Amino acid sequence: MTLPRTNEHERFERGLRALSEIDGHAGEKVVAQLADIAPDFARYLIEFPFGDIYSRPGLDLRSREIATIAALAALGNAAPQLKVHIEAGLNVGLSRDEIVEILIQMAVYAGFPAALNGLFAAKEVFAARGLSGQERAA
Amino acid sequence: MTLPRTNEHERFERGLRALSEIDGHAGEKVVAQLADIAPDFARYLIEFPFGDIYSRPGLDLRSREIATIAALAALGNAAPQLKVHIEAGLNVGLSRDEIVEILIQMAVYAGFPAALNGLFAAKEVFAARGLSGQERAA
Amino acid sequence: MTLPRTNEHERFERGLRALSEIDGHAGEKVVAQLADIAPDFARYLIEFPFGDIYSRPGLDLRSREIATIAALAALGNAAPQLKVHIEAGLNVGLSRDEIVEILIQMAVYAGFPAALNGLFAAKEVFAARGLSGQERAA
Amino acid sequence: MTLPRTNEHERFERGLRALSEIDGHAGEKVVAQLADIAPDFARYLIEFPFGDIYSRPGLDLRSREIATIAALAALGNAAPQLKVHIEAGLNVGLSRDEIVEILIQMAVYAGFPAALNGLFAAKEVFAARGLSGQERAA
Amino acid sequence: MTLPRTNEHERFERGLRALSEIDGHAGEKVVAQLADIAPDFARYLIEFPFGDIYSRPGLDLRSREIATIAALAALGNAAPQLKVHIEAGLNVGLSRDEIVEILIQMAVYAGFPAALNGLFAAKEVFAARGLSGQERAA
Amino acid sequence: MTLPRTNEHERFERGLRALSEIDGHAGEKVVAQLADIAPDFARYLIEFPFGDIYSRPGLDLRSREIATIAALAALGNAAPQLKVHIEAGLNVGLSRDEIVEILIQMAVYAGFPAALNGLFAAKEVFAARGLSGQERAA
Repeated sequence: MTLPRTNEHERFERGLRALSEIDGHAGEKVVAQLADIAPDFARYLIEFPFGDIYSRPGLDLRSREIATIAALAALGNAAPQLKVHIEAGLNVGLSRDEIVEILIQMAVYAGFPAALNGLFAAKEVFAARGLSGQERAA
Repeated sequence: MTLPRTNEHERFERGLRALSEIDGHAGEKVVAQLADIAPDFARYLIEFPFGDIYSRPGLDLRSREIATIAALAALGNAAPQLKVHIEAGLNVGLSRDEIVEILIQMAVYAGFPAALNGLFAAKEVFAARGLSGQERAA
Repeated sequence: MTLPRTNEHERFERGLRALSEIDGHAGEKVVAQLADIAPDFARYLIEFPFGDIYSRPGLDLRSREIATIAALAALGNAAPQLKVHIEAGLNVGLSRDEIVEILIQMAVYAGFPAALNGLFAAKEVFAARGLSGQERAA
Repeated sequence: MTLPRTNEHERFERGLRALSEIDGHAGEKVVAQLADIAPDFARYLIEFPFGDIYSRPGLDLRSREIATIAALAALGNAAPQLKVHIEAGLNVGLSRDEIVEILIQMAVYAGFPAALNGLFAAKEVFAARGLSGQERAA
Repeated sequence: MTLPRTNEHERFERGLRALSEIDGHAGEKVVAQLADIAPDFARYLIEFPFGDIYSRPGLDLRSREIATIAALAALGNAAPQLKVHIEAGLNVGLSRDEIVEILIQMAVYAGFPAALNGLFAAKEVFAARGLSGQERAA
Repeated sequence: MTLPRTNEHERFERGLRALSEIDGHAGEKVVAQLADIAPDFARYLIEFPFGDIYSRPGLDLRSREIATIAALAALGNAAPQLKVHIEAGLNVGLSRDEIVEILIQMAVYAGFPAALNGLFAAKEVFAARGLSGQERAA
């Protein structure tokens, strides 16, 4: 077991940087929404997923967002977080078309409704960013 | 809507090639197991996931397997298929460590039990392939 | 394994007819909504679920819609598709009361919340079709 | 709201008869397995699903088992109960081929792994009943 | 197996009392919403969960609501019922902070999105009751 | 947001103590099983669920295990972890009967199969601890 190498403060700071890079304003908004209900959970969200997991070497952020988008679309019960991570996918270098491919593929593993609802979530995110739905059609 | 470009026979052949490249013997075994219960479903399995989806341009096979491993680990209710796709991930170029990273990350989106059960599935697959559990420790 | 009998074009046409018969305008609307985000997925939706599966002999459409309504209500994470298939159930000959029975039964297999949310989805669909909620009370 | 028409004893007796008709020995076995851990739960199982729900008019038992098989295959996390209800489906008049059709269809709504695992469960049940896997091939 | 001790009428009355104590007006509202679509299901809802289960000795109502809030937050697909039971938790003696703790803990077992969506549901319920989000901060 | 109060080492040590108190040997076994596949994940498992969450004031360990048993039984896809936490429930003061009550209650929220499979898991754990299935019958 690798011994803990950093103190809590470094972990929190590293998490904040990763959250900002990956989720941008959407991440900050979630943290703000937690302020009056569960501020400690906002801290955990920064420390564990972002300070610990996304900051690990061994898998690039683009690959990490492929995994997250796929998992959230397959589970089908966390629409707000799926939208945050479709946006995060764009932030770390996935193209609209690649995100669409991931969501289409979920029809195989979680059924057509999961894929459809994922695609409609992507449509909303793309529209909000001023992107037309289909890259290759352009 | 892109008009269908190929006939059914081409689609089946293309699916067989993709299935063989991605799933190797595990894919053939599933098809054989379906022979006496639902042979048409074996055909659909070759045609739709492999002939249609995995054969699409726009996302490389390595990225597709990241998505599949993440989704199956997150859903947590399809252990045999998760093992087939951990093996498929190795077949299309994911390293053991990258697969471990994907599974660890699922703790964030589907909980620690989903990640744990995914990691234990990977441990079995790696052992069956004669790979030690941890690359970087070597 | 039954060899593919039809070419892609026949499969697409057969799917369109089945989609129209089963889902009516709701199906066409979904296809239209996909046009600018994932038109190929609209094609798959027509070809695989409708051209391949619902067109199979061996199970009548009424029975197929019982299965679909039950599955979507039990999964509980695809409300728009559940509504489309409650409507489809009416289209292929299920009565309001039969649909209500299917949804009530889901309390046993997926819990009371899944049944409740299914019943409230049915209430919306029935109201939109100008049907009162309860047949036998009439 | 329909007023309760029967006393508890009638409800229990009616449930026992329905359980016996639908699940046969598999139902009795489950009740026996509960005897030393939660006998009251065995009573609820007889009273509510069987005494209340399956005994309702308005949907025939064949249709009810279609719904149950579909829901359990889609959820994918209750293999023992899926097997009991594949057997129950045979008991109330579904053919092997109809059960296979229901399970194939679940690929559309819950993904290919759910359909595959459902089909393999059916294969086990059919084999235990001395039925070959495929009717129409005979 | 404990023999049924009460008649149906007693069971219904006991369920009504438990529903009123636990869910308050939210429970009555659900029963009313079912009146024109599935009044028998309203009766089952009163009889089985409330007349049978919540009325059992052996586990206090506070503990029962911990279990329900945890389960509904983990499943993540029944937001209206989760809100009803967050309110029910307050009704039977859980503090806001205890409910927040249960929801935070679900991050471990069902992932961060499930915990987040549970916390945001709680935030709405607390606000509607005129409670500020955080007790200890007061 | 409460500022991090402890360094990483304290967090790890606190987690180890909580893991030992709650999960006993079962927890140590899981950590050992991770040693050659994902030792860092063993560290996270100690630090986050046990060092951070279970160590929080505001909810006693008995209540925390009620929540965990309920969530894992409702999700129905993590049998090994459910067994570990049924054992943990006994370790922190839940009686066999209370655990049985929690599992029975899950029939309402996740369906009878989830409750049944939870009860059978409990039966195994109780037998391994030399406890007869039913306390009150004694």
